[in-house]
Amino acid sequence: MKSASIVSIGNELLNGQTLDTNASYLSQELLSMGLPVVSWHTVADDTDSIARALQLASEDADIVLVTGGLGPTDDDVTRKALAKLLNVSLEFHKELLEKIEKHFASRNITMPSNNRIQAYLPAGTRVIENKWGTAPGIVAQFGTKLIFVLPGVPIEMKQMFQESIAPRLAKLVTGQAVTVRKLRCFGTSESAIAELMGDMMQRGRNPQVNCTAASGIITLHIIATAENKNTADEMVQTAEKFIKNILGDLIYGEGEQTLAQVVGEKLFKRKQTVAVAESCTGGLLAKLFTDIPGASEYFTCGWVTYSNDAKITELGLSTQVIEKYGAVSEETAALMAQKARQKAGADFAISITGIAGPAGGTKDKPIGLVFIGLSDAQKIQTKRFIFSGDRETIRMRAALTALNMLRLRLQI
Amino acid sequence: MKSASIVSIGNELLNGQTLDTNASYLSQELLSMGLPVVSWHTVADDTDSIARALQLASEDADIVLVTGGLGPTDDDVTRKALAKLLNVSLEFHKELLEKIEKHFASRNITMPSNNRIQAYLPAGTRVIENKWGTAPGIVAQFGTKLIFVLPGVPIEMKQMFQESIAPRLAKLVTGQAVTVRKLRCFGTSESAIAELMGDMMQRGRNPQVNCTAASGIITLHIIATAENKNTADEMVQTAEKFIKNILGDLIYGEGEQTLAQVVGEKLFKRKQTVAVAESCTGGLLAKLFTDIPGASEYFTCGWVTYSNDAKITELGLSTQVIEKYGAVSEETAALMAQKARQKAGADFAISITGIAGPAGGTKDKPIGLVFIGLSDAQKIQTKRFIFSGDRETIRMRAALTALNMLRLRLQI
Repeated sequence: MKSASIVSIGNELLNGQTLDTNASYLSQELLSMGLPVVSWHTVADDTDSIARALQLASEDADIVLVTGGLGPTDDDVTRKALAKLLNVSLEFHKELLEKIEKHFASRNITMPSNNRIQAYLPAGTRVIENKWGTAPGIVAQFGTKLIFVLPGVPIEMKQMFQESIAPRLAKLVTGQAVTVRKLRCFGTSESAIAELMGDMMQRGRNPQVNCTAASGIITLHIIATAENKNTADEMVQTAEKFIKNILGDLIYGEGEQTLAQVVGEKLFKRKQTVAVAESCTGGLLAKLFTDIPGASEYFTCGWVTYSNDAKITELGLSTQVIEKYGAVSEETAALMAQKARQKAGADFAISITGIAGPAGGTKDKPIGLVFIGLSDAQKIQTKRFIFSGDRETIRMRAALTALNMLRLRLQI
Repeated sequence: MKSASIVSIGNELLNGQTLDTNASYLSQELLSMGLPVVSWHTVADDTDSIARALQLASEDADIVLVTGGLGPTDDDVTRKALAKLLNVSLEFHKELLEKIEKHFASRNITMPSNNRIQAYLPAGTRVIENKWGTAPGIVAQFGTKLIFVLPGVPIEMKQMFQESIAPRLAKLVTGQAVTVRKLRCFGTSESAIAELMGDMMQRGRNPQVNCTAASGIITLHIIATAENKNTADEMVQTAEKFIKNILGDLIYGEGEQTLAQVVGEKLFKRKQTVAVAESCTGGLLAKLFTDIPGASEYFTCGWVTYSNDAKITELGLSTQVIEKYGAVSEETAALMAQKARQKAGADFAISITGIAGPAGGTKDKPIGLVFIGLSDAQKIQTKRFIFSGDRETIRMRAALTALNMLRLRLQI
């Protein structure tokens, strides 16, 4: 069975300042196409260390993916290290320089002379095109092993992997089939999901079901291994059907879908619109909605009424309600949703008001207390929550819970 | 100079399901006590792979820190791998079993028989106490090298590192002091910074200056190594002064400071307020402002006027201006900032309107075109930008650039 190894390059990794999200991303992608990753080697921006890591990785596996060290500065030495491993020299490529110069020209900037170094490649290697940046990637054959070198900037690395490398690797791995499928859940805890799932999640089963959690989003990874793709696909489908029966509408989506995406698609299909009025989440809910391309089809307007004054002058809440019940109350949440919907002329409006901390909590209204309102033409629904965690966690939980309330409303 | 290498063990890492926060944590801690980390090796729960990684790590460095694979299940084989490396057998420790049994008894649970395996250690190694879990850590001498093995559960690993390992290592590294300082920059490219810095960033210098970039934030890491802490501190101070002279107000802050934090502190000190009106960033700028605890002192109100209608009805822009110049124009940006400031009664208002993509670009108004407006009582300033990258990158660049415009205004 073919396998892969990943080499990550960068002082910022070994200093502990940056998490290696690239290695995790590539590992997931490779596994899902039937190429298990057997090792990661992480080294500093140093020619000898990189050359050694490339050597070790190609001892470990058939395919080596490398990220980092392709930038224009003196500490970007991956090109040199690869040339050292291959025992060749660096060659200047005129057409690469022209591309890099064009990249700067399109933004009306003169190319800094440093960037010239990015037009050099080890002799005998080929280029991987980089649409988003100036650092071209490199493909090299090293004995029987294939080495792919990509920039460390995640957006550039991902685009290059998906467009240039994934199709090549897919061809290489025929005969070994792994099917991976992710189900995304929201609305309960990881341990509650595990309890509902029973022995489905036991180790050593095939398909294997793993569970990860982040910001309240619980992801189930169904991983089936079989001699051919069809069998693996069928195994995953059977498991998926079974899990969907158990978890019902705790499952909001699949693959990389976000809650905002799923809600947006539903609104788009129903030709309906939404507006938001936020206090403690301070724009985060609007941001999640507008993360999705095409959100202008259904997202009309958002108010970040952070101060009480803004709630009164901009949304038209009454001073009395805020004085009587407080800015963080069911009543305020209900009015915020109602007024936002009316002012925006939208089909739905969501409101969030709460105490995100770290200060501002009282015995009656502790940190983490959040009221969410959901208004449509017929009624206004409000819900009270107490979220735990730090400011960032509380804000994200509140915004995602608000999206989930609208999702469940749209399923009716 | 002594150095360290980290071995991380776990299928969940190589599957891409879990980020290796342990390696980053340990690297930061080790560096701050004068032990630079030169490599990470990450392998699966497999005896031979782990033994090889331990071998490689002890070739790389004097101190090896290992996390993971100490649990009670069949795939926890780090103990076996260490025994293999050391060429010794596993020995049963009665007192360890008693401790593990006690751990369960204190929670009124009968110890599962699996956990018995955690009472075995490679012959000749010693125990590191684990206060929070059942997996004891291990210290082993391997030739001249020292190997510390810790569980992968972050809370257990951190407690054991801080209480048992850090004090031991601190003794080992006397005579080597490292001081690290970060300067945060915004407003130009990584390569332009490198050019300005000249030979300050050359490899092998002491202090060493490294440069990383994320979302347009460029971070300079100044790392000085000296015989004692005072000297290292002084070396960093001298370098810092020098760099500040060169880069001037390209440097916006230090350490972990964000642009929103720096701007917030300035507003707070000046007792001034800000409002925002966003189109393409869809709430992101408001979100960045309100990420900061206490933002209610200076952030009053935000409008996410995503549709043209909302720009007209909520901010009071004239239909004519939008029809004549378009929603993405200098004129619209200027009016959005002016109206937002007036409506909110704030000292400043920032507006953002642009095309974040991936669709919606034209030849005259390409994807990435963004106008930012900044209004105060005296004047309205607008600026035109073309940002490259995907939707997320363009939105983040636009929001950070807007914050930076206000930062520079507040410095006057």
